[in-house]
Amino acid sequence: MQLKTIDDLRDDDILWILGQAENYRLGATVPPKFTETVVGLVFLDASLRTHFGFASAVARLGGTSISVADRRANDVSACESIQDTLRVACGYSDIVVARLKEPFPLIESNPGVHLINGGDRGPRQEHPTQALIDLFALRRSSKPLDELVVALVGDLRMRAARSLLALLRRFPPKRILAVTSSALMDAAECAADSAANIEYGGMLDVLEADFIYMIGIPNGAIPDEERSSFRLTRELLNRLSPEAIVLSPMPIIDEIHSEARRDRRMQFLQQSDDGLYVRMSLIEFLVKASNRDEGR
Amino acid sequence: MQLKTIDDLRDDDILWILGQAENYRLGATVPPKFTETVVGLVFLDASLRTHFGFASAVARLGGTSISVADRRANDVSACESIQDTLRVACGYSDIVVARLKEPFPLIESNPGVHLINGGDRGPRQEHPTQALIDLFALRRSSKPLDELVVALVGDLRMRAARSLLALLRRFPPKRILAVTSSALMDAAECAADSAANIEYGGMLDVLEADFIYMIGIPNGAIPDEERSSFRLTRELLNRLSPEAIVLSPMPIIDEIHSEARRDRRMQFLQQSDDGLYVRMSLIEFLVKASNRDEGR
Amino acid sequence: MQLKTIDDLRDDDILWILGQAENYRLGATVPPKFTETVVGLVFLDASLRTHFGFASAVARLGGTSISVADRRANDVSACESIQDTLRVACGYSDIVVARLKEPFPLIESNPGVHLINGGDRGPRQEHPTQALIDLFALRRSSKPLDELVVALVGDLRMRAARSLLALLRRFPPKRILAVTSSALMDAAECAADSAANIEYGGMLDVLEADFIYMIGIPNGAIPDEERSSFRLTRELLNRLSPEAIVLSPMPIIDEIHSEARRDRRMQFLQQSDDGLYVRMSLIEFLVKASNRDEGR
Repeated sequence: MQLKTIDDLRDDDILWILGQAENYRLGATVPPKFTETVVGLVFLDASLRTHFGFASAVARLGGTSISVADRRANDVSACESIQDTLRVACGYSDIVVARLKEPFPLIESNPGVHLINGGDRGPRQEHPTQALIDLFALRRSSKPLDELVVALVGDLRMRAARSLLALLRRFPPKRILAVTSSALMDAAECAADSAANIEYGGMLDVLEADFIYMIGIPNGAIPDEERSSFRLTRELLNRLSPEAIVLSPMPIIDEIHSEARRDRRMQFLQQSDDGLYVRMSLIEFLVKASNRDEGR
Repeated sequence: MQLKTIDDLRDDDILWILGQAENYRLGATVPPKFTETVVGLVFLDASLRTHFGFASAVARLGGTSISVADRRANDVSACESIQDTLRVACGYSDIVVARLKEPFPLIESNPGVHLINGGDRGPRQEHPTQALIDLFALRRSSKPLDELVVALVGDLRMRAARSLLALLRRFPPKRILAVTSSALMDAAECAADSAANIEYGGMLDVLEADFIYMIGIPNGAIPDEERSSFRLTRELLNRLSPEAIVLSPMPIIDEIHSEARRDRRMQFLQQSDDGLYVRMSLIEFLVKASNRDEGR
Repeated sequence: MQLKTIDDLRDDDILWILGQAENYRLGATVPPKFTETVVGLVFLDASLRTHFGFASAVARLGGTSISVADRRANDVSACESIQDTLRVACGYSDIVVARLKEPFPLIESNPGVHLINGGDRGPRQEHPTQALIDLFALRRSSKPLDELVVALVGDLRMRAARSLLALLRRFPPKRILAVTSSALMDAAECAADSAANIEYGGMLDVLEADFIYMIGIPNGAIPDEERSSFRLTRELLNRLSPEAIVLSPMPIIDEIHSEARRDRRMQFLQQSDDGLYVRMSLIEFLVKASNRDEGR
């Protein structure tokens, strides 16, 4: 399969993946050993968590990851097309995870080879595996998902936020609060959002949230002064419920004040760590899908 | 052994490697498990297929590849010599595959460690493993090699072309047609070529070929207008035999017109995929050579 | 544990590591198989030997190494903190080896995860694993350590030299001769050195040494003419004892004259090769420490 957007996974696939990830986290299931599986990691744009996290997940499952982080052009040669690069990688792998500097292309991959969007760029950019990790973090709450108030703070057009919002439309919490700048809002998306009962609010509204998901805002996207108004400060944290939890797809640049970072409600490192289980579970899902197909 | 040029392999070694590669392709032989083998991948110049392909081949054989893609100098230190870099890598590996920005140096590697030229640069540049992959592709034809007409289009001085021509002098097809610019021809090489019955021709001569091997021409090597005359166009393809096959060492930049790329005679992706089997077979050949030496 | 400086290891730990490394070198012990161990290699500054050497050591022990060599910022985003990067890597690994462009930070790593300084930068920079490799090389002498005269030539403030000197204060040879420029000397360090009976001398004093450890001097640190006076020349080598041995943490740029490099007393490549055994032994030490902790 090609996992380009979160909507390429069915609801019950997602529930299986998150359930199995929880089994891994609890040590309730022994990971299978996919010693024959080769996972190609094609990371053509900066990545730490996704690259390292998939490499580790493959290792924990007994498989092998192979990695290319560069597709350098040189003085006498332009780059080949991204389709060629991905297609060649598919020829050498059972699963390819790709991080791209451009929109994920339409490609015809080799039969039986799975292709995962590890984060692309462009107006419809997505980061579907991060969304799975984020939903996993929300589901670790002691409250059921449909009783949770989730605030998303920052630029909702960023890939992690886009994929998470798409996922939350299918697995809706009680309320979604979007805290963003009008300069960062896309009219069409807003229409879709309002249909999905996304409420827009200001920074103080995060005080009502069970989860605050800090997206971040790219430098220069809005004036610095406005940008800093979306920062999670010590003062805000002091007024926040002791049960509230702060998440982030990371990296965290300056959207959380450095003095606020050591607060125990900051759970983004836990969220990052748990990403290992989600990635293991996703790989298991794909390998088993291949085995089912071969069994037919 | 050191595999710097294709002539470092004997004829019967080459035939064994290509035969075993075909066994792998057909699934007719179970790959051995070289779980103790460490292959060092020292890629100091851009590479996708060779780097990824060897990493995958090692994984398919149960071995481990380790990779260094950078040998950065910094502000207070120049680079060490390429000999030191390769020699150090040999100390940590059973086989080293190196892609270099310079001519492959004379080095004394550790006893029992094999060193493979994964593509170097310079007036005598070679890419011997690509030549094996190319000959493997030619041998997949339904016709025997000595009945094939093979056209090579582009800059014959490029490393893949140089190694392939050296190999075809030893395993000659019926005819070799060279389609290139006089500005790209080396007098000494031409003399050797004519001794080897290489015929020089124009772009229309490719219509007589069973295989068209698109080498490419570096940007700026000849004027753009002349350079584009060596492009495989839709029109040319329309006049080409339905049985003809187009190969390329890739990357493909613009030497094949984008509209022509989806034609089913374009077999360069198949050629790239099959490279996995050739690389597996080469590694098996080298590991078994080491075992034989130790047995003495 | 966190191995940031050589002083994070106890004397008997060091002796165990070097003893086991010698067992590996002699083939006197079969390496354990740590098939479940994942070692994260976070190399954010140039490295060949340390990166490749740890990757190989992990492979020889049956484990898996995963690697990130880049933490690129881009136009719209600064880098996250080095603490976050290391902490995230710890979440995906059992052991993390990090090479940094900055001082190794204070970080709280995950319980049970070991963190190794693979070379950092700054006024207190260290390279503790290189120091272990260097002491291993000294101990391969036919003379006992406390009868050896060891000369260190170059900038004693460089990380490999700093860690080696710290180690030699604890495992003292008979004499330590420091050959350096007064412009490269740190007053405080010199005081500590003199307490440790380090003697300062000139280039001719290396003729008294059993081991000459060529540290190198960064370009531009002192005037070129003075810098070249610390070079090991053919003339000096001609006057040196036939039993003397020249070591280096490498890379070697120009501190050893190229004509002098093929002399059989040059043992730095042997030293580099043996580094594999030291790294294997260190990893074994850490994995066994984790197992002991879990057993409690």
